[in-house]
Amino acid sequence: MFEVIGERINTSRKKVQAAVEEKNAEYIIDDVKKQQEAGANFIDVNAGARIGHEKEDMEWLLNTIGPITSMPLCLDSPDPAILEMAYEMVEQAPMINSISLEKDRFDTMMPFLKGKDCKIIALCMDDKGMPVSSDDIIERAQKLINELEAVGMKQDDIYIDPLVQPISTDSTKGIMVLDAVRQIKKQNPQVHITGGLSNISYGLPERKIINRTFLTLMMDAGMDSAIIDPLDSKIMAAIKTTDMLLGSDNFCMEYLKGVRSNMIKS
Amino acid sequence: MFEVIGERINTSRKKVQAAVEEKNAEYIIDDVKKQQEAGANFIDVNAGARIGHEKEDMEWLLNTIGPITSMPLCLDSPDPAILEMAYEMVEQAPMINSISLEKDRFDTMMPFLKGKDCKIIALCMDDKGMPVSSDDIIERAQKLINELEAVGMKQDDIYIDPLVQPISTDSTKGIMVLDAVRQIKKQNPQVHITGGLSNISYGLPERKIINRTFLTLMMDAGMDSAIIDPLDSKIMAAIKTTDMLLGSDNFCMEYLKGVRSNMIKS
Repeated sequence: MFEVIGERINTSRKKVQAAVEEKNAEYIIDDVKKQQEAGANFIDVNAGARIGHEKEDMEWLLNTIGPITSMPLCLDSPDPAILEMAYEMVEQAPMINSISLEKDRFDTMMPFLKGKDCKIIALCMDDKGMPVSSDDIIERAQKLINELEAVGMKQDDIYIDPLVQPISTDSTKGIMVLDAVRQIKKQNPQVHITGGLSNISYGLPERKIINRTFLTLMMDAGMDSAIIDPLDSKIMAAIKTTDMLLGSDNFCMEYLKGVRSNMIKS
Repeated sequence: MFEVIGERINTSRKKVQAAVEEKNAEYIIDDVKKQQEAGANFIDVNAGARIGHEKEDMEWLLNTIGPITSMPLCLDSPDPAILEMAYEMVEQAPMINSISLEKDRFDTMMPFLKGKDCKIIALCMDDKGMPVSSDDIIERAQKLINELEAVGMKQDDIYIDPLVQPISTDSTKGIMVLDAVRQIKKQNPQVHITGGLSNISYGLPERKIINRTFLTLMMDAGMDSAIIDPLDSKIMAAIKTTDMLLGSDNFCMEYLKGVRSNMIKS
């Protein structure tokens, strides 16, 4: 089953930032409940936007969200000190967003991850920047997988983000990622593939149809998780429909549920 | 580039049948022009619905359509006598819809095809009925390809229809076809894959989202043609968007044209 990481609790979103500033717990609780009802499997929590306030904002957000949901959270910060605090605050084993091959981030995150009970999003980014080919993505992913396994993480807890890039800059950017994902999954069947989709449509109009069509293609290639807005019913409908077409929805139960709840419309 | 076979000129559609009965040429001409403007590459012409009148109806339709378009037609009939007449009437090398491995149809169509300048849709149907597995589809396709090549047809003129079956009856019916198409294209890169999509959603609600999501998956597998209604702007938008994401739309020109003409909407 495809896993949805709900992206909405992020202080870079104006309304979330305002709620954090005003300690408006009701707004945050309502948003989390809506994401859960819409089918989120994880709630991403990112408190990075108010410079100098990340620690207190993360703490308040986790204190606000913790009591009202049993869903696992995705703790989203580049700072291991904040992740340590957050990790201690959550009930369920969280997902951590993220590690990469950039030397600074890699060197600070590896000691944090050692011995932790968590899932980890691993970005195919290194100090040279974004990957430039399918092989480059595959190599970076394999390096991340090997390093994470070496500190005791299971493949099933590793979520590789191949880093989707804009099709507007180069018409091969779509197949570059699709080919890489197929290969990574072939070599590491237990590893998950995740990430945001919206970079694919950067610079183009009517972006959402591009994002959800690309998600359908990515699911076929092996993507089994994504960081998206679960309140976007069209992308959720694309996920349910694609899951069914790829054989993961026995008796079309989830599809039919989506139609009954008005999420799926022709 | 993906090829659209416009399916609308079919006397099983009420309005077309009425137009044929009333010799309402204007209606037919208008419909063909709309299909052409919407991006059809072929116009399917099927006059089979009025029992006993197929020959005269086909003749009238071709006389009506011929003078107003330079687009190739797809002559859609099980009767070689009617196809012979139709073949002589058209200016451009037509597509013929269709041959299959059913003994009667195969034995009457093969002599017709010998030496003709045309494209042919070849259905993976035989006297046992629909194919029951990926391997079954692949075997039937290969048999059709071999037989057609043996009478002098080029791979590039062969359009294999793998016969999409309802996902509601069996959750593996989607991947069964997708896997088969990948394999057929791998073994015969010049051969085209075509067909209708709507069988996939038979028995389910909100069918169109299923059809167009499946089309995106089929295009990734290697389908490069389909028999659809080009006036369904959502399925045309799915084709343009998928073509772009799979690297077939340099500088996103076709996508941007689709947005400007209001065909593509988020």
